[in-house]
Amino acid sequence: MLSVEFLENKIKVLDQTRLPFKEEYLELDSAEKASNAIKTMAVRGAPAIGITAAYALAISDDPEKDYHLLLSSRPTAVDLKNALNFVARGKTNEERKQLASSWYAEISEACAAIAENGASLLESRKNILTHCNTGAIATGVEYGTALGAIKKLKEQGKDIFVYACETRPRMQGAITSWELSKLDIPNSVIVDSAAGHFIFSGKIDAVIVGADRISANGDFANKIGTYSLAILAKENNIPFYVAAPMSSFDFSINSGDDIKIEMRDEKEILTDDYAEGASALNPAFDVTPARYVSRFITEKGIFSPEGVGSIGKIHRS
Amino acid sequence: MLSVEFLENKIKVLDQTRLPFKEEYLELDSAEKASNAIKTMAVRGAPAIGITAAYALAISDDPEKDYHLLLSSRPTAVDLKNALNFVARGKTNEERKQLASSWYAEISEACAAIAENGASLLESRKNILTHCNTGAIATGVEYGTALGAIKKLKEQGKDIFVYACETRPRMQGAITSWELSKLDIPNSVIVDSAAGHFIFSGKIDAVIVGADRISANGDFANKIGTYSLAILAKENNIPFYVAAPMSSFDFSINSGDDIKIEMRDEKEILTDDYAEGASALNPAFDVTPARYVSRFITEKGIFSPEGVGSIGKIHRS
Repeated sequence: MLSVEFLENKIKVLDQTRLPFKEEYLELDSAEKASNAIKTMAVRGAPAIGITAAYALAISDDPEKDYHLLLSSRPTAVDLKNALNFVARGKTNEERKQLASSWYAEISEACAAIAENGASLLESRKNILTHCNTGAIATGVEYGTALGAIKKLKEQGKDIFVYACETRPRMQGAITSWELSKLDIPNSVIVDSAAGHFIFSGKIDAVIVGADRISANGDFANKIGTYSLAILAKENNIPFYVAAPMSSFDFSINSGDDIKIEMRDEKEILTDDYAEGASALNPAFDVTPARYVSRFITEKGIFSPEGVGSIGKIHRS
Repeated sequence: MLSVEFLENKIKVLDQTRLPFKEEYLELDSAEKASNAIKTMAVRGAPAIGITAAYALAISDDPEKDYHLLLSSRPTAVDLKNALNFVARGKTNEERKQLASSWYAEISEACAAIAENGASLLESRKNILTHCNTGAIATGVEYGTALGAIKKLKEQGKDIFVYACETRPRMQGAITSWELSKLDIPNSVIVDSAAGHFIFSGKIDAVIVGADRISANGDFANKIGTYSLAILAKENNIPFYVAAPMSSFDFSINSGDDIKIEMRDEKEILTDDYAEGASALNPAFDVTPARYVSRFITEKGIFSPEGVGSIGKIHRS
C-alpha cells in the first residue's frame, strides 16, 4: 500500500504521525481535511504533499477558494504550488481528476528515474548518510527520492550501510530507519549533531538528501540540518547529493534568499525535559547554497550546480 | 547551593538527571556510589566530575582500587584523571581530603578567571550560541566555563541573547535554558541541527563551548555536535571559542587522534518513536581540530591555537 491513494471522491493517506508503530489511514474527502493533514504532518514529504493537494483540489466544489486554502497549508515545499497549478487548469471535477492522475503518474515515473540516476551516481559508495525521510512514504509513489536511490542500490545487490539522522524535532529518522529495515538495508540512527563526527572520522562515503524547494540558481530548502551536512561534506571532501523531481524546482525565484522558511510551534522542541517558561525557535527548514551541492539528481538527469540553470530550460521546453 | 559539596565523609551532589524539574540531592559515601553517579550522569560536566572523584578518593579506604574504579567511570573527560592524580598523592584520608579541598579551590578560582577572560573576549558580541551545559551545575563551583563567561557579561550589564542547542540525546540544553533563565538572561532553545541555519542567517555573533579533554596541540573533545559548530563558525567567519580550565588539558597526548570517545547506550537515542529492532550509534563526544578554534579561554589567559603549546609550558612551570 502506498502512502497516498485516490479512491473515487476521497484520498486515503497513511497517517505518518503514527509511524512506525501504527499503520493507520485517514480518509480525506475535502480540501479542508487535506489541508489539516498537511499542516499536522499526517501527510509529509514534498512529493506526497503535492499529490495529496492535487487530488484534494480535484474533488473540490469551490476550487478557487480551496486552491488558496491548500496552498497555505505549508509554505516551504513548492511541490504543493506546482501540483495545485497543474490541476487548477481543469474546469470541471472530471478534468481536474484527470490532471491529478497525470500529476501522480508523472511523480511516480520521476521518482523511479531519480532512483536509477541516483544509484548510478552512488554506485561505488558503501556508507551513505541521509537526513529526514525521503522514502516511498514521503513521495506517495513506489520509490522515494534520496532513499529511492538507496533502495535501487539494494535491488542492484550492492553492499550498503545507511546512517540515518534522527531529524529533530519530528524524528523522521524513525520512519527512515523503519523503511530501510523493511527493505533489508542495514542502518543505524544517529543524533543529527553526530553527522560531523562520522564524516570527520572517514566513516561516510556520501551524503544524499531530498529537497523541498529548489530555486533557479540551485539554492534549495530542505529539512532543518541539511545546510550543516552540506558544509560538513565540503569540509571533508565527500560528495553531497540532492535528489528531487522537477516538481520541487521553483523557477520563479532566483535564489535561496527568496525561499520562505516555515517556523513551526516551539512545542515541537520543548519536550517534558524543559522548565516552564522555556522558549524555543523552530525553523522547519534551512537553505543550502547551490555551491555546496556536488550533483542534483532529477528525472531529467544529473546536474552540477553550474548546470542547474539548464534544468529550467529543459523543463520549460 | 552548588552542584557538588563535601560534607565530612560524604559528597552531596545535585542529581542532574532530575533537572530542571526536581532539585534533588544524592549523598555519595563511597567511591562506588560516586562512580555510579558519574556513569549515570547524575553528576556531569568535566569539572564537576573531577571534583566529585577527588572527594570520593579522599574518603576511600582502598585508594589504589578506588582510583581505578573512579577513573573508569567515564573515559573522555580528563578532569577525572587529573583530579584523581592530584588527590592520590595523599597518603592518608586527611591528606587526601586536604588535597581534594585544594583541587576544589583551584577549580573555583579557575572558573571565576575564565568567566572574566571570556567576558572580555565576548564583550562586543550580542548573540551567542552555546552547546550542552557548561554552567555552574557542570563545574560544581560558582561560575561555569562557557556559560560562566556569559553570566559575567550579564553581571557587567551587557545586552545579550543566548541560543542554546538542545544537545541530543541527553538534552543538556534544558539545563542551560533553565540556568540562563534563573540568571535573567534571554535565551531560546534550538534543535542542534538548526545551529547552521542561524549562523548562516547572520543571527549569531559568536559560538562558545566547553571542553572535556584538550590535547597538547589543542585538538579537543567535547559534547557530540561541537565539531559541526566549529566548521559552521569557520565557514561563516564568526569566532569559535573554547572555555576550559587547565584541568581539562591532557598534555600526555599529542593530538585528538589519541582521545578515546565514549560510546554510550543506543537506548539514549532510540526513544518511543522507534520500531523494534532499530539500531543506533551513540558517540557522546567528538573531536575538533585545534585549527578551527579562534581562541582558548583559560584561567591562565587567552590563547590562539598556535599558542596552545605555550599553555603546557606555563602549566608545567
